[in-house]
Amino acid sequence: MMSPSLLIVVSGPSGVGKNTVINNLFIRKPDLRYSVSATTRDPRPNEIDGQHYFFLTETEFQKKITAGDFLEWAKVYEYYYGTPKQHVQQLLSSGCDVILDVDVQGALQVKKSLPEAVLIFLAPPSLAELKKRLAGRNTEPETELNKRLQYIETEFQMMPQYDYLVINKEIDLTCDQIECIILAEKRRVNRQPENLLNNILNG
Amino acid sequence: MMSPSLLIVVSGPSGVGKNTVINNLFIRKPDLRYSVSATTRDPRPNEIDGQHYFFLTETEFQKKITAGDFLEWAKVYEYYYGTPKQHVQQLLSSGCDVILDVDVQGALQVKKSLPEAVLIFLAPPSLAELKKRLAGRNTEPETELNKRLQYIETEFQMMPQYDYLVINKEIDLTCDQIECIILAEKRRVNRQPENLLNNILNG
Repeated sequence: MMSPSLLIVVSGPSGVGKNTVINNLFIRKPDLRYSVSATTRDPRPNEIDGQHYFFLTETEFQKKITAGDFLEWAKVYEYYYGTPKQHVQQLLSSGCDVILDVDVQGALQVKKSLPEAVLIFLAPPSLAELKKRLAGRNTEPETELNKRLQYIETEFQMMPQYDYLVINKEIDLTCDQIECIILAEKRRVNRQPENLLNNILNG
Repeated sequence: MMSPSLLIVVSGPSGVGKNTVINNLFIRKPDLRYSVSATTRDPRPNEIDGQHYFFLTETEFQKKITAGDFLEWAKVYEYYYGTPKQHVQQLLSSGCDVILDVDVQGALQVKKSLPEAVLIFLAPPSLAELKKRLAGRNTEPETELNKRLQYIETEFQMMPQYDYLVINKEIDLTCDQIECIILAEKRRVNRQPENLLNNILNG
């Protein structure tokens, strides 16, 4: 039987506004849970193990890779990041829906391990709009910005492997659409508990 | 390319409240269209051909069956009823979403002809509740009522072949859920127009 709780993976190109969307979803749906990632980077001041990240040594992380303990993982520059399978499954079996914020490559890894995960691709209204937003951030050197822009087209090519496409034009509309997707997915016949039919027939 | 418009098939056991739900959906979503059925029965006073039904002779109807012109058809007692494929496709290509109100057998026929149709099974909160509603109607002899009740279990057995299950507990909640299903289905990646990616990338 599939879990009636959902694992919702939201990803999309840098600058699309994913964090704002996810933060708004948590305000709207207090029963949503955020999946905590594991990492090999050092904790920053005020970061708490198990809350912001699960902080692991590289040896611990690699052991977990070998054991298949990650739904997805990646090495970004010198550090490893990953989604611990057991942590996600604990949240799901407690009856909560879980939001996973991973990049496009990670999302597709998750879908492979857990086909019932719901993959939402968050796209900008236009590439021009995205470039404007990214340039407006002004937080990184131009070479970094150009690298990001080059990666965007690769990300878009992976969109057909997602379940849903949501265009982030206006934050409230975007969150409405994602809330509807969550509600609709919960009504899918193949997600219904096995005893539901009996409950109705004998109710 | 799939049509961005949706064919939504709503069915469920007698007495579940399907007509009330569908009528409410039309009030909420004025852009929804109702698919007009074809039939061989005689028009009643005030019934208009092409609006209430397409009235056909039995010979005409059978020709259309042979030609594969129906998305689904059935013979109920002495009359034929069917959903004309061309009529539905015209409504869809005009950009409207179409609601189809057919029984469970018909719904599965539609899914076979048009796999992108969205099948929603409307269920009562409980069989006891349904029996109460049916008995409350008081419009048919008891033998007819018992026949209906026997058929209900057969209908439930077909639920796993549907896409969505909505339990009709409270009309507004039911319509909210169906509206969400429609919205979510429109965000499905495989329903996006082919040129969308180019529009975003070149926009």
